[in-house]
Amino acid sequence: MFMHNKRLMYTVRVAEPNPGLATLMLEQFGGPQGELAAAMRYFTQGLADEDVARRDLLMDIATEELSHLEVIGSIVAMLNRGAKGKLAEAAEEEADLYASMTSGGESHTTSILYGGGAALVNSAGVPWTAAYIDTIGDPACDLRSNIAAESRAKIVYERLINVTDDPGIKDALGFLMTREVAHQKAFEKALYAIPDNFPPGKLPADPQFADVYFDMSQGEGEGSGPWNTGDQWTVISDREAQAAVDGGDGQASVGLDETSGAAVDAFAARTRSDPDSDPVTGADLGAGPGAGRTTRLGDEDSPR
Amino acid sequence: MFMHNKRLMYTVRVAEPNPGLATLMLEQFGGPQGELAAAMRYFTQGLADEDVARRDLLMDIATEELSHLEVIGSIVAMLNRGAKGKLAEAAEEEADLYASMTSGGESHTTSILYGGGAALVNSAGVPWTAAYIDTIGDPACDLRSNIAAESRAKIVYERLINVTDDPGIKDALGFLMTREVAHQKAFEKALYAIPDNFPPGKLPADPQFADVYFDMSQGEGEGSGPWNTGDQWTVISDREAQAAVDGGDGQASVGLDETSGAAVDAFAARTRSDPDSDPVTGADLGAGPGAGRTTRLGDEDSPR
Amino acid sequence: MFMHNKRLMYTVRVAEPNPGLATLMLEQFGGPQGELAAAMRYFTQGLADEDVARRDLLMDIATEELSHLEVIGSIVAMLNRGAKGKLAEAAEEEADLYASMTSGGESHTTSILYGGGAALVNSAGVPWTAAYIDTIGDPACDLRSNIAAESRAKIVYERLINVTDDPGIKDALGFLMTREVAHQKAFEKALYAIPDNFPPGKLPADPQFADVYFDMSQGEGEGSGPWNTGDQWTVISDREAQAAVDGGDGQASVGLDETSGAAVDAFAARTRSDPDSDPVTGADLGAGPGAGRTTRLGDEDSPR
Amino acid sequence: MFMHNKRLMYTVRVAEPNPGLATLMLEQFGGPQGELAAAMRYFTQGLADEDVARRDLLMDIATEELSHLEVIGSIVAMLNRGAKGKLAEAAEEEADLYASMTSGGESHTTSILYGGGAALVNSAGVPWTAAYIDTIGDPACDLRSNIAAESRAKIVYERLINVTDDPGIKDALGFLMTREVAHQKAFEKALYAIPDNFPPGKLPADPQFADVYFDMSQGEGEGSGPWNTGDQWTVISDREAQAAVDGGDGQASVGLDETSGAAVDAFAARTRSDPDSDPVTGADLGAGPGAGRTTRLGDEDSPR
Amino acid sequence: MFMHNKRLMYTVRVAEPNPGLATLMLEQFGGPQGELAAAMRYFTQGLADEDVARRDLLMDIATEELSHLEVIGSIVAMLNRGAKGKLAEAAEEEADLYASMTSGGESHTTSILYGGGAALVNSAGVPWTAAYIDTIGDPACDLRSNIAAESRAKIVYERLINVTDDPGIKDALGFLMTREVAHQKAFEKALYAIPDNFPPGKLPADPQFADVYFDMSQGEGEGSGPWNTGDQWTVISDREAQAAVDGGDGQASVGLDETSGAAVDAFAARTRSDPDSDPVTGADLGAGPGAGRTTRLGDEDSPR
Amino acid sequence: MFMHNKRLMYTVRVAEPNPGLATLMLEQFGGPQGELAAAMRYFTQGLADEDVARRDLLMDIATEELSHLEVIGSIVAMLNRGAKGKLAEAAEEEADLYASMTSGGESHTTSILYGGGAALVNSAGVPWTAAYIDTIGDPACDLRSNIAAESRAKIVYERLINVTDDPGIKDALGFLMTREVAHQKAFEKALYAIPDNFPPGKLPADPQFADVYFDMSQGEGEGSGPWNTGDQWTVISDREAQAAVDGGDGQASVGLDETSGAAVDAFAARTRSDPDSDPVTGADLGAGPGAGRTTRLGDEDSPR
Repeated sequence: MFMHNKRLMYTVRVAEPNPGLATLMLEQFGGPQGELAAAMRYFTQGLADEDVARRDLLMDIATEELSHLEVIGSIVAMLNRGAKGKLAEAAEEEADLYASMTSGGESHTTSILYGGGAALVNSAGVPWTAAYIDTIGDPACDLRSNIAAESRAKIVYERLINVTDDPGIKDALGFLMTREVAHQKAFEKALYAIPDNFPPGKLPADPQFADVYFDMSQGEGEGSGPWNTGDQWTVISDREAQAAVDGGDGQASVGLDETSGAAVDAFAARTRSDPDSDPVTGADLGAGPGAGRTTRLGDEDSPR
Repeated sequence: MFMHNKRLMYTVRVAEPNPGLATLMLEQFGGPQGELAAAMRYFTQGLADEDVARRDLLMDIATEELSHLEVIGSIVAMLNRGAKGKLAEAAEEEADLYASMTSGGESHTTSILYGGGAALVNSAGVPWTAAYIDTIGDPACDLRSNIAAESRAKIVYERLINVTDDPGIKDALGFLMTREVAHQKAFEKALYAIPDNFPPGKLPADPQFADVYFDMSQGEGEGSGPWNTGDQWTVISDREAQAAVDGGDGQASVGLDETSGAAVDAFAARTRSDPDSDPVTGADLGAGPGAGRTTRLGDEDSPR
Repeated sequence: MFMHNKRLMYTVRVAEPNPGLATLMLEQFGGPQGELAAAMRYFTQGLADEDVARRDLLMDIATEELSHLEVIGSIVAMLNRGAKGKLAEAAEEEADLYASMTSGGESHTTSILYGGGAALVNSAGVPWTAAYIDTIGDPACDLRSNIAAESRAKIVYERLINVTDDPGIKDALGFLMTREVAHQKAFEKALYAIPDNFPPGKLPADPQFADVYFDMSQGEGEGSGPWNTGDQWTVISDREAQAAVDGGDGQASVGLDETSGAAVDAFAARTRSDPDSDPVTGADLGAGPGAGRTTRLGDEDSPR
Repeated sequence: MFMHNKRLMYTVRVAEPNPGLATLMLEQFGGPQGELAAAMRYFTQGLADEDVARRDLLMDIATEELSHLEVIGSIVAMLNRGAKGKLAEAAEEEADLYASMTSGGESHTTSILYGGGAALVNSAGVPWTAAYIDTIGDPACDLRSNIAAESRAKIVYERLINVTDDPGIKDALGFLMTREVAHQKAFEKALYAIPDNFPPGKLPADPQFADVYFDMSQGEGEGSGPWNTGDQWTVISDREAQAAVDGGDGQASVGLDETSGAAVDAFAARTRSDPDSDPVTGADLGAGPGAGRTTRLGDEDSPR
Repeated sequence: MFMHNKRLMYTVRVAEPNPGLATLMLEQFGGPQGELAAAMRYFTQGLADEDVARRDLLMDIATEELSHLEVIGSIVAMLNRGAKGKLAEAAEEEADLYASMTSGGESHTTSILYGGGAALVNSAGVPWTAAYIDTIGDPACDLRSNIAAESRAKIVYERLINVTDDPGIKDALGFLMTREVAHQKAFEKALYAIPDNFPPGKLPADPQFADVYFDMSQGEGEGSGPWNTGDQWTVISDREAQAAVDGGDGQASVGLDETSGAAVDAFAARTRSDPDSDPVTGADLGAGPGAGRTTRLGDEDSPR
Repeated sequence: MFMHNKRLMYTVRVAEPNPGLATLMLEQFGGPQGELAAAMRYFTQGLADEDVARRDLLMDIATEELSHLEVIGSIVAMLNRGAKGKLAEAAEEEADLYASMTSGGESHTTSILYGGGAALVNSAGVPWTAAYIDTIGDPACDLRSNIAAESRAKIVYERLINVTDDPGIKDALGFLMTREVAHQKAFEKALYAIPDNFPPGKLPADPQFADVYFDMSQGEGEGSGPWNTGDQWTVISDREAQAAVDGGDGQASVGLDETSGAAVDAFAARTRSDPDSDPVTGADLGAGPGAGRTTRLGDEDSPR
């Protein structure tokens, strides 16, 4: 069960309204690396985790992220508070309201559609979607997802700090950024406390392919590193050896029963493009005299 | 520049069509943990990475993932091949076609909408979205995202292997699963080859909060682990000490100029709910005699 | 700040696993009328509301809805718990796992993609989106949205109760359903405690059109009711009187400067369809002899 | 069956093109509170309503909303008409076209992607989605949704009027705004003409919980109102009394058969985080000397 | 302005309810090739078209498609009508309702979430999105899009006819299918009545590359046809000649000012992966003894 | 199998960074008419096409489009390269970074969320979705879709060229634009090489309705053209003759069994709006004295 304390986890002191800056802050409210995504990632994991202690960890941090969501949402609300009142009360001339709303970022959408509130959209106005959540129900994977997610959130906060000179906002963002670091450390501990966490799951990797490096991108600019050098790796650069690595013919096949086979054949016959035809096409019908000439190789000086 | 070799990276041998199984396989074709997501994650990273060698790594694996996309897509196409022909040619009675299409999974959608082809949707028919891609342009984060993504893809392949008894499909899925393990190892190497990769970014964490553990979820079922025990961590369990950790009042505030302040006040006055009123409401208007009684506490035996 | 108590708001006692039923329950976890939508609707309103008492109401109910989210998510997790373990451990034959996962609803997606956890998707597997949230930052509107949302959630719970015979689930759903009724009553009170809440906003309706009823749909089946009868309403049924009700010509126009006007003219001339032409078309090119005949009126008996 | 009269329902007179303003207007064309959402909300309700008279009401208003969609779309088209021609004909220098397209709102997207037409996107460029439609097929709920939706649309029009000084646009928007008020009145009549509409549906609320108010958010800033005061309400503020309100243990449980239980146990054992370990983690590997020190509590003065 | 006639454009006679079949029919109600997509495609084109006659064509067909939307929606409503009543009234045992709702397609979602109404979703339950609409505001392109869209809609109707044996539904679908053919013919006429419609737009193609065929996919299975044979085409098969076809070095470059250059260099240095390192990684930490051995090439017989 | 050559298909020479212009270019990277959509459209078709030669065509062009995706993505990366470095390194004052990021287009989102990389979003920041792909698995339709898609992509490139004065970008865009023309020509050849491609599919159109033109939009502004004149077409303008064209009653009906019928009746009775009531409504409750008067017809001069 969740409970709420009216005091924020961190005090929010905004110097003055700035709807454009509010838009940027939305990234951590309703964006993919934001606090709702974090809270829901850990909450959905916690609901289904069989490990009691780890479940506690997940619920602890999920709850903290909800508290962070409230902090960042409060920053947005404060930054929008002036615009909200002025638009609702028509407290300025139309042209002034228009000018202030269209002078940076998506503040026009925030004002018109959300009335200056904190909406669950990212800084481009895209609604938050659960497609951002990568929980799959395997702890050794989910903890890796959490580690990565915390590191990403840390960087987005760092970027926001870099574009803000309001000291109160910088202060609050610094707290939020730091907590992502702390959370990453906690999730790292939980991952490596699983004794045998790599590879995740139960099925072993096929040793034939588990340490092969396929050099698929070739030409000037190739590099090497510990990911394709050393005893561990077998590097395959030969183009033909990269195909059909099972030793087969590299084709796809399926066994069809008689009815299916006949139907597929009929469909194929009915929709075949005759390779020996030279049909007049819609493009031919549509190409005017000038256009026609410019699209033919060799007629490069033809005017249009 | 990309090139294509008509031989698949791994030969696909499907025993017989099975549109229901094809639906499950779509998870790795157009699903969040699937091969398009993988390819596009690494490709978008590779385009903007300043490190030549790591860029090579990213393009190598992005290209391989596109080749995997072709393998899993070919499995889907083979599994659907019979249904595709029969529906297009009306080769069975309507009732038989209807029955075969609605007997498991989303094969009805695949057949009606996509004609039995391999569509970029997940196993529930949800179209692939770039919201699945978590690239943020910081190598120390993106490599962590890649590590996590490879681990997730490994597990989804393992689950698909567990529900398939077609040996050709199991074989191809085993290859694809193994390659995720290999890719994870390569990305791990690239991450830890960045000498100072934690915390990511340039701004340091605030030491006041970097090793604090907030015990937000309390009650029977709490646990401990290396994430909240040991010298590293300061655990804060006191409910009041969890709020306003900056020592402030935990309120949100903003400085408003006179116009904004007046507008906000006017808006607040105009939309205030009078706390001392006891208004008749729409629910009162709408509650019939019976309904009204059942919704009043104490009238538990009233019929409706 | 949010806190968490490990005890659920309502005890969840599920008789036995049933992944198909779990899928249905997802509707109230990650669906449009579900608990996350409710919690986020009130939370985003609460963050920006200028009325302290109403803000308290919104945060009270938002927090309760998060607690409900945990209850319904726990039901899903319990219903999926068996399938989760069996798939992860490959504890059954492939064919049995396949059969159990594809025998109803979207349980295949839940199992393969989410590993049997509670995912923020609806019962069709569509990820939750903030597009479900209709908060616009005006209390007289937002409270109406809340009233409507609570009524919808009540009905979806009622439908779920009607398809479940597990007594523990029925019991918990009954609690959740009842709370939606209670919340609707509270929001009704808050709306009608705003003394002048209709029409919302500050601009008055234009009396010329505020009580007109346009009878746009005509023919057998027309009806009447208090929405178009009585002294209040002026009904306009005449088709011509429904158009250009301002008395103008019903056209759209804009003043263009010279450059724009010339550019529009040039564009129009360049892309004009000649009304007097009778062009051969791509359809003509593509219609084979048989097809051609069946598509001409009067040739109804022509075979194809 | 729908028919179309080429005269608009309201004459549109736009003074001069303004692509930035066109962007704002898109909110009511392809946005969540816009006319397509309204039309489709009522149309989908009308198709399935069993009440002939109410079905007539729904189709009347659905049809009118389609006519409004045409009005607002015509405003957008007029505001974009100059930009459309100039971009298509390259009638200005590149730099001038670039400057005009990027000087406010999303007009760059509208111009490049939609060629200056009226696109079904909101003012941030987000495509319209049927996720905006909250029809659930219960009249007592759907009418409440309609009432709320009309009130929201009224306010969005009011905001648009407040940022526009073009008299022709203000005039047309005033008509559209007024009609939302009229529609709300009609839907209110239809709702309260259902004799017993609260609570909606057939199942009664559980009297134990129907008039309880859970005070989930506590601290300075709590308020009261008719939603939690008076004889009707029982307020529960005690934190422990808010949990497991059924009197149970507040835990979630499920009965598992032997196979499932064993599989769950095996999965739990395999993925357990050892609480007594103190593992070296990836963060430890990745923390450089400087970083390491700043992330350890007590080293607050260490440089980085 | 739109008007509505209560008679459908085509009479709908459904033999008996069938929620599973209703799900399939949704494809043409709220699916990408369905009637709303068609209506909105032509309507948005019509609003902005400068050619009066073509605008008339577009509005004629847009209006007809809305009328088709009503026909297909009525089919869905009739097929769901029994389930709707039974679920709302709890007219069957829970187990029977559950069984009937989960026995094919997405009828569970339609019933629970939409109450058996016609929802704007496709047959997989995915909400309709304006992303389906490909209008770009150039008539020569938009008419081609319309031609393609009508052909696709024709096929989806054909597939639906092939799985239905209800004669009344087959009859109505046959009408709808035929109208797509008629519309395609009309749009073809309108396209080819633009005298110079290929290539669309004003800028000519570069004759150097306008008739070149790049043979990017090579290996067994290559074919030829009028698209790469004949005098028109220059085929380039040489792999190196396919890259950097402008004769440059095939690299991407940008001029950076001093500040930017320095910042990029600093970022690159800070995030460089050291190619000569051989770091211990998280995978190394996580690989247990058994796992470690199976992931090393050459240890193929090691148990796990 | 795909392979990668590190040389781009076309050399990218960008004069100087310009994040605002980068945003526009995203349209062809992650937008609906962009290169990923093109590549995936042809790739999904190619996987399932039964015609070997056409499959080769599809894979040739799919592969080329991936190579184009790399070219346009490299343009974006170059245009963003300066901003990327400066934001990551905090190489400018906060106010300068803020100003540069919010001065046009969506560059703020690109910078904050994606770190200046090339993200798979359109120029409004909307993530790419497979809903853009219209592949349905019928070659005669899919080729028409391809023709239309290539024509649209040509125009979007033309628009981008019109707003860019960087010669290197113009040059590369000119190449990409030209290739769309070449692809359209190839797909046209493939379509018309199917001997009998219109109408697509196997079922013939119903000759009763295949050449009828329904004149649904009437009034001043009607036009004619080859799509509704000439011997081919039967034009139906009479409003009544447009409804129920099958000669039936234009109603929708379904046969219900007894249980269903009774349930529907009970539901209808329970939710009926009484047409003879004149209920007090929520609007009545909410209308204050002033508001009430302005919303009553005839009181036009009443102040508010």
